[in-house]
Amino acid sequence: MAESKDNEPYVSSSPVWIIMGSDSDLRIMSEAAKILESFAVGFEMSIASAHRSTDYVLEQTRSAVERGVRVIIAGAGLAAHLPGVIAAATPLPVIGIPLQSGALAGQDALYSIVQMPPGIPVATVGIGAAQNAALLALRILGCYDVVIRDDLVKYSQKMRDAVLDKNAKLASIGFRQYLEGM
Amino acid sequence: MAESKDNEPYVSSSPVWIIMGSDSDLRIMSEAAKILESFAVGFEMSIASAHRSTDYVLEQTRSAVERGVRVIIAGAGLAAHLPGVIAAATPLPVIGIPLQSGALAGQDALYSIVQMPPGIPVATVGIGAAQNAALLALRILGCYDVVIRDDLVKYSQKMRDAVLDKNAKLASIGFRQYLEGM
Amino acid sequence: MAESKDNEPYVSSSPVWIIMGSDSDLRIMSEAAKILESFAVGFEMSIASAHRSTDYVLEQTRSAVERGVRVIIAGAGLAAHLPGVIAAATPLPVIGIPLQSGALAGQDALYSIVQMPPGIPVATVGIGAAQNAALLALRILGCYDVVIRDDLVKYSQKMRDAVLDKNAKLASIGFRQYLEGM
Amino acid sequence: MAESKDNEPYVSSSPVWIIMGSDSDLRIMSEAAKILESFAVGFEMSIASAHRSTDYVLEQTRSAVERGVRVIIAGAGLAAHLPGVIAAATPLPVIGIPLQSGALAGQDALYSIVQMPPGIPVATVGIGAAQNAALLALRILGCYDVVIRDDLVKYSQKMRDAVLDKNAKLASIGFRQYLEGM
Amino acid sequence: MAESKDNEPYVSSSPVWIIMGSDSDLRIMSEAAKILESFAVGFEMSIASAHRSTDYVLEQTRSAVERGVRVIIAGAGLAAHLPGVIAAATPLPVIGIPLQSGALAGQDALYSIVQMPPGIPVATVGIGAAQNAALLALRILGCYDVVIRDDLVKYSQKMRDAVLDKNAKLASIGFRQYLEGM
Amino acid sequence: MAESKDNEPYVSSSPVWIIMGSDSDLRIMSEAAKILESFAVGFEMSIASAHRSTDYVLEQTRSAVERGVRVIIAGAGLAAHLPGVIAAATPLPVIGIPLQSGALAGQDALYSIVQMPPGIPVATVGIGAAQNAALLALRILGCYDVVIRDDLVKYSQKMRDAVLDKNAKLASIGFRQYLEGM
Amino acid sequence: MAESKDNEPYVSSSPVWIIMGSDSDLRIMSEAAKILESFAVGFEMSIASAHRSTDYVLEQTRSAVERGVRVIIAGAGLAAHLPGVIAAATPLPVIGIPLQSGALAGQDALYSIVQMPPGIPVATVGIGAAQNAALLALRILGCYDVVIRDDLVKYSQKMRDAVLDKNAKLASIGFRQYLEGM
Amino acid sequence: MAESKDNEPYVSSSPVWIIMGSDSDLRIMSEAAKILESFAVGFEMSIASAHRSTDYVLEQTRSAVERGVRVIIAGAGLAAHLPGVIAAATPLPVIGIPLQSGALAGQDALYSIVQMPPGIPVATVGIGAAQNAALLALRILGCYDVVIRDDLVKYSQKMRDAVLDKNAKLASIGFRQYLEGM
Repeated sequence: MAESKDNEPYVSSSPVWIIMGSDSDLRIMSEAAKILESFAVGFEMSIASAHRSTDYVLEQTRSAVERGVRVIIAGAGLAAHLPGVIAAATPLPVIGIPLQSGALAGQDALYSIVQMPPGIPVATVGIGAAQNAALLALRILGCYDVVIRDDLVKYSQKMRDAVLDKNAKLASIGFRQYLEGM
Repeated sequence: MAESKDNEPYVSSSPVWIIMGSDSDLRIMSEAAKILESFAVGFEMSIASAHRSTDYVLEQTRSAVERGVRVIIAGAGLAAHLPGVIAAATPLPVIGIPLQSGALAGQDALYSIVQMPPGIPVATVGIGAAQNAALLALRILGCYDVVIRDDLVKYSQKMRDAVLDKNAKLASIGFRQYLEGM
Repeated sequence: MAESKDNEPYVSSSPVWIIMGSDSDLRIMSEAAKILESFAVGFEMSIASAHRSTDYVLEQTRSAVERGVRVIIAGAGLAAHLPGVIAAATPLPVIGIPLQSGALAGQDALYSIVQMPPGIPVATVGIGAAQNAALLALRILGCYDVVIRDDLVKYSQKMRDAVLDKNAKLASIGFRQYLEGM
Repeated sequence: MAESKDNEPYVSSSPVWIIMGSDSDLRIMSEAAKILESFAVGFEMSIASAHRSTDYVLEQTRSAVERGVRVIIAGAGLAAHLPGVIAAATPLPVIGIPLQSGALAGQDALYSIVQMPPGIPVATVGIGAAQNAALLALRILGCYDVVIRDDLVKYSQKMRDAVLDKNAKLASIGFRQYLEGM
Repeated sequence: MAESKDNEPYVSSSPVWIIMGSDSDLRIMSEAAKILESFAVGFEMSIASAHRSTDYVLEQTRSAVERGVRVIIAGAGLAAHLPGVIAAATPLPVIGIPLQSGALAGQDALYSIVQMPPGIPVATVGIGAAQNAALLALRILGCYDVVIRDDLVKYSQKMRDAVLDKNAKLASIGFRQYLEGM
Repeated sequence: MAESKDNEPYVSSSPVWIIMGSDSDLRIMSEAAKILESFAVGFEMSIASAHRSTDYVLEQTRSAVERGVRVIIAGAGLAAHLPGVIAAATPLPVIGIPLQSGALAGQDALYSIVQMPPGIPVATVGIGAAQNAALLALRILGCYDVVIRDDLVKYSQKMRDAVLDKNAKLASIGFRQYLEGM
Repeated sequence: MAESKDNEPYVSSSPVWIIMGSDSDLRIMSEAAKILESFAVGFEMSIASAHRSTDYVLEQTRSAVERGVRVIIAGAGLAAHLPGVIAAATPLPVIGIPLQSGALAGQDALYSIVQMPPGIPVATVGIGAAQNAALLALRILGCYDVVIRDDLVKYSQKMRDAVLDKNAKLASIGFRQYLEGM
Repeated sequence: MAESKDNEPYVSSSPVWIIMGSDSDLRIMSEAAKILESFAVGFEMSIASAHRSTDYVLEQTRSAVERGVRVIIAGAGLAAHLPGVIAAATPLPVIGIPLQSGALAGQDALYSIVQMPPGIPVATVGIGAAQNAALLALRILGCYDVVIRDDLVKYSQKMRDAVLDKNAKLASIGFRQYLEGM
């Protein structure tokens, strides 16, 4: 195991890089951005296709470590090569979001992202799950950043409390009144 | 963004926890263990079903941070709830491996792991991709451990060189002789 | 076979527990509630996520027998772990409803619910089939409650009569006029 | 809710009826029988196709309540109509087992069994999951038979202990030695 | 091969029986009726569920030969047992139409209809293909009715001419003007 | 409806034409031949690919009526165009058998055969269901041939008796002894 | 390898033939036409069904070389035999476009087009990808036409620049303002 | 349309480049090589992964035109990015072969290759269809090389004759003797 002296201080203001292949993906990918903002974690955001702008993607990926990026979130639909192409060009963890697009409703993108060959993993989340991609990025950053990890625990507690509140409301007013209020 | 003073020193001797639902998964899950060994990264390894030993899984998950675990690798087949149940009980990143088992050949496990609801992400790798799960864990640890990150770069270079060697061999002896030697 | 002296009298006013992971499932899950009401069978109804409120789900499940619950109906979408997590924490029969949600239209939830590992069964009904889940719960209660069983027979007869009436109407007025009246 | 006076005493020696469409299904369906035997719960067992012997199936189903049957387990492959045809002819709960057969590996049977129309539910378990079908039948009988319910709790505890033992063994001897002993 | 003396004269005024499980299927099933009308071939039309009115379906099926029925067209969605249950009760050819309904868009019905076990075939047409079902019924009647067979040839010629006309129009006015006129 | 005078006497010695795209399909297609033999119904049998020998297929199909063919059985795997190409060239009923071949296990062939466009139906049976294809051909011939129809009824009775015998045997010797004898 | 003297000069004014089975496919197929127009490459355009107008399709296909056609683009939905039937009747390259139609959303067409048997390839593009089909045709023509090949390089550069522009805009105005402007 | 003066003489001795991601794909990819050899068309053959040796793949692809390559055949399994990455780096036509590998039997590779985004087409053939990929490459070269095109016509005639021979043999000796001789 690596000695702790090898640990580099974590000082980047934008440790997450959100990248998507097309601006038609921006609306869903911005859900990831909003999660990061709510945790006060900085991020870069790019539109860059693995096929239409290969060189730019490779250059940006290869300079990511130096730019202070620690986790990359890449969303793509259809054949969805972007996350895998990025993962091949960096030792950083890459989170892939299969996006729902076209006749196959994202199942093509899911397979294209999750079934990477041995040696080059992509951390795949659910189809369209930009919010979960950001939370996974935060979990990764939280491995060594206690503040983020504590914030994640609070986030989970809020989710729990919100569910328990709804449950109490349902018990209180019954399903008919609850439905009317939705 | 969290201040660097919040960063905890990384001193665990077993930063990865490999867990599987059944010892029938051990052979494939041990591929993850071997990758970690080759990077000299320590790990815990458990057999513990989300359904048969729920309490044990929850207790072990909730104490994982204190035990020094930073990344969890969970493999499961069929309905494959283990990675999700663990992810719900910890702020640590959880890597899920869908395992090939039964009539649906792992597609059931893939869906059960990757399609987690908003709020609780699982970093899913390919069906049976234990090796990639370990490499993803290393990428996560490598976010702040320069030695691991450098080792990952070397690992990628070795993969590249192995492919280039095969390519040179094919160019040299032709496909018929190459096939005979396989 | 157990002696009849072991049979406990069935006196609960709410033998069915309907639980769902999110209030976005309430509209479809309330179809189960309405069926139970029409059979004058009482029920509890909860919103409680397996991932967001694990402890609450486990506590409520483990106290279900004492609360008089005899059958549990759990609905969930996406990775849909709720029915399985509940089934692992109780010896009561658990009916799982895969709910249609997201890009995979409920097929993910179907697999996540029906493909449970050996030892922990979930009685799965069709995607979105809340009505059938309630009727299955009634069949289970009807194993030893003659009134419910007789009501189920009457329910089937009504369904049969409704079909025969439609058939007679079609024979009487023909398909063109029938379609106009729809 | 039905009054307790309506509850009929449960005195059947064979409360479970296991039925399959072909003797080619017998090997897997006998796993259900063995589970019931281990719980000392009696059962009938039949080979009777919904299509080749429709009248026999309907007659046997319609007399099932009088014969003392309380739960029916029906296994079928391919188009797999047997569980649904039976469910349409009885108010008893019917558990359907999709069997793996032919080119579609049981997915056809799964759809044919679980996607029943409104009004006639089948409690579907996983593809080939005869063991789980029997455990679900026991959970149903256990709704009002405390001995069976207690036995199910013990069964779950044994499953848990078996997993914990394997986990302890793995911790003790490591994965390499564990794999050698398998 | 049977001698021609065994051939019974074909005198029925309604050689086709169109049956569906629910009046929600009537709109699409009436497309079959309209095709038959355009060929001046008579038909019966029924609404009768295999599960809700099993006895009626079996009785009607078993008397079909005597009623003069020679071909049966049965449409059903979801688990879609109707065509198979009918095919098991008659030696007449049964054409099954999988209907699009629910989350699985008719793939469940397709499997439930086409994957019949050895011994009881159902002539399956495409999902929702009521028109093709009627044309298949006409082809079957046309095996020994020269008038119908000749009418089918004319029908094919009309289809061919319609396509050739569209092709000529496209060649004449170009795709932009053609699209404007649609 | 056509007058009976239009009915042509049925005197062909080979009313069924079995055709397949490759001799690799012969083993499974010969199951159809054997069924026809057992009913003493004559047949032609051809190997002729829709793509490799298009002209031959079209010529043979267009002369089929004159040769005395009344029903065509066509089997094909993969893209499986043969049944559809034949159906487009004849008014006779065409039965399509999707054959299991290659990576998609016959699902490609099933879709290619069953999803024919409006106007050209193919009577599709299950994947690899050559036996059922022959029985469907017999049902079609039996529309006006009482001997064949009666033989089909006897065939069904034999299937029923075989199932009832197996059921009686199971009841007599129990599942353990039955399994030993298999 | 063929000597260059065998190369025929390329002088056709319409080297591409776009064909579809129905005018309901015209809107999407005209996207291919527009791409060709933008490259100043001529094309023929036909509506001709493989099943409804087989002879016409075969005649037109067999005369294609003499008409100067060098690449054929064929689009079809459902069973989608058109591209394969054409490919069997010409040595020219055939590009197949699976079209989204009916319950299976184009997956049937994809399988019917791409899974052609050995000997008769179809160059398949994505579901509904008429634009890509035209670009593939241009790549094929560009094998020996330097102008077309250079135009394709310019086309790629324009795509790259458009992506880079969007990326710069996103960097400049941020995702919120970018989304507002969409 | 480009003037003929723009046509470059075709003088390369290796107009086809066969590339695969791993030497485990060599056996199936060599089927493509053998087809090219039988047409006396030269080819290059490389092993080079899109992820493990990205730079090498891009360099080789970008120099392909100058090396005399006119068609590229790329085979890959799992996420299968190789054909798409190559297609993004060249204006030459790229033929993609989805290879059968892992739990999803090539369906993942099919989607990853065929569902390319607008602008970058890959000419996809069937799963594992290396032979068809080579024939498609020959059709492309045959667009302007009459010798190759004529050889393709002869190849088709041989396929036709082989089928007709088999058909004659079947007619001569019957299916039983034919099967014995296989």
